[in-house]
Amino acid sequence: MSDRADFDGRGCPSPLLHHTSIQLAHGAGGRLSSELIERVILPRFSNRILDRLEDQAVLQLPAGRVAFSTDTFVVDPIEFPGGNIGDLAINGTVNDVAMGGATPLYLSLGFVLEEGLEVDVFCRILDSMSAAAAKAGVMIVTGDTKVVDRGACDRIFINTSGLGIVREGVSLSATNIQAGDRVLLSGTIADHGMAVLTSREGLSFRSSVRSDTCALNGLVADLMDASPNLRALRDPTRGGIATTLNEFAKAAGVGIRLQDHAIAVRDDVRGACEVLGIDPMYVANEGKLIAVMPEDEAEAALAAARANAAGGAAAIIGEVTAEHAGMVSLVTALGSERIVDMPVGEQLPRIC
Amino acid sequence: MSDRADFDGRGCPSPLLHHTSIQLAHGAGGRLSSELIERVILPRFSNRILDRLEDQAVLQLPAGRVAFSTDTFVVDPIEFPGGNIGDLAINGTVNDVAMGGATPLYLSLGFVLEEGLEVDVFCRILDSMSAAAAKAGVMIVTGDTKVVDRGACDRIFINTSGLGIVREGVSLSATNIQAGDRVLLSGTIADHGMAVLTSREGLSFRSSVRSDTCALNGLVADLMDASPNLRALRDPTRGGIATTLNEFAKAAGVGIRLQDHAIAVRDDVRGACEVLGIDPMYVANEGKLIAVMPEDEAEAALAAARANAAGGAAAIIGEVTAEHAGMVSLVTALGSERIVDMPVGEQLPRIC
Repeated sequence: MSDRADFDGRGCPSPLLHHTSIQLAHGAGGRLSSELIERVILPRFSNRILDRLEDQAVLQLPAGRVAFSTDTFVVDPIEFPGGNIGDLAINGTVNDVAMGGATPLYLSLGFVLEEGLEVDVFCRILDSMSAAAAKAGVMIVTGDTKVVDRGACDRIFINTSGLGIVREGVSLSATNIQAGDRVLLSGTIADHGMAVLTSREGLSFRSSVRSDTCALNGLVADLMDASPNLRALRDPTRGGIATTLNEFAKAAGVGIRLQDHAIAVRDDVRGACEVLGIDPMYVANEGKLIAVMPEDEAEAALAAARANAAGGAAAIIGEVTAEHAGMVSLVTALGSERIVDMPVGEQLPRIC
Repeated sequence: MSDRADFDGRGCPSPLLHHTSIQLAHGAGGRLSSELIERVILPRFSNRILDRLEDQAVLQLPAGRVAFSTDTFVVDPIEFPGGNIGDLAINGTVNDVAMGGATPLYLSLGFVLEEGLEVDVFCRILDSMSAAAAKAGVMIVTGDTKVVDRGACDRIFINTSGLGIVREGVSLSATNIQAGDRVLLSGTIADHGMAVLTSREGLSFRSSVRSDTCALNGLVADLMDASPNLRALRDPTRGGIATTLNEFAKAAGVGIRLQDHAIAVRDDVRGACEVLGIDPMYVANEGKLIAVMPEDEAEAALAAARANAAGGAAAIIGEVTAEHAGMVSLVTALGSERIVDMPVGEQLPRIC
């Protein structure tokens, strides 16, 4: 192609010399694999560790305990209002590492691409990943790309695994949670799940709902500064805040009593939930966290969260009780109380 | 079900209370997800880190540099003579970590399951993973399970990411390779690729070919003991030894001259390659490595490899030259020499 010499590794739609869509040969380990890696993937994540192109990264980690997490992303559709499978995959693993009280540092990428995936779509996803990694302050240090035949996967799946260093003296776990603790939620709920759901073919109704996908490592650092005895952190993704809080109650053998009025839901999200008959408490978030801390640290934690862009709408949504161990309840505006159960089955498949 | 009380976490075919195949709800984060994880997956990998069931493992790593690697496995069929996608996924990442001169310690698992996958097939795969991890001496410390709708993936894909500690003073890289070095191959080639290919529907011809999938970390340790100035290690998976050696030649800016007679191919594998018109040099291996070391350490390295069960058929297959930089050549039994090129495209899709 005539633009071969001009190519700088960016600038779709012609990053691959002879193809505008992914071919099986791009995953076979030969010349076309090298071309895909060296012309399309590497230029977006280049750093001295990744550029070695060995089958493993060799890292000199700072002293301390290491947090290690993995997540595979299969969201459908792969692009949705507010994000795509790429930034979702970066932020999701950054957040899982951060929820261990850690500073995320290094990520791996594992792609499964379906034969026929448009190269320009892949490039858009990679650009989002690159931007999200830069924003979260993490480096992509190793990766793997497989291509499967048409019909053997749905366009693209992405695994990210991540490493971070746990802050000294911090040991977060659901089992730390005690009666009297307070429950902080960092913002509005159900944004991500409803953005994906309403953007699916046949379900769009001119919605303004956008995914909340974002990295929460900065917010986590601020919360740890403000609450030295922070008990536990978790990002309520699949299954929503109802599932995360049930997991907390079960792991710690405590009750959790929530105040309905304190749980914020955007008007457009609430509207979409009502139309579809879905309870926002069970819908996935991708840029929110739940933190539990002692009562006397709750005020400082809340102030710290609100001062961070990712926690501007933070609120204390409930308290931990000794009674009703293993159960989550919700006090409504009228003062009645109902059980918030663990969901049994599938509300929203392939939301992340 | 009447067997509920007797269930011990093993013993298919009834590990899930109400289902003999995977449902979308098993990936939704609710009760059925918990059931799948706690009754089927956890009992096979149980350890104090994984059992915490947090979204990340917190590890106290030994001092030293960390090797970090990732690989997604999409092999078709998922069960083949000599192994299945499960032990392949464990051994593959153990080997990628080990090839960095490291002792593999911890692995993550990321499953993508297709709705309808038989639970007993999944259990068989998990049992193989558990056995392979025990044999390699690695712990599974964190994981993720997604379920996609029928037709959105091909039964099961598995990502494994791994961590290990690099031996002190060791710094392996293809760029270390120098003219005069020797090239060691740890055994016969093309076993894995031909086992998968001949087991595919329509291609089986009562073959005795079996995959060579196995963990090579013990062999790597023995080679490092025997060759203090070991230059580089790599396991020649996708693209076979031809691809790995071309990558070495290119990265180091050297030539590599191979002796055809020294490269061992099992008779049944050679027969299958001839029937299908495939060059075994380009076929994937999953239990072999290529090591490059200084000439004066080659004899000790060879003896060490042969003393290890995974290297019994090891041989010195060639030498590194200053001329023909970036190229690999093969000297035949008749003394003629031909170029062994990088493969352009797809020989064998979904071999790992």
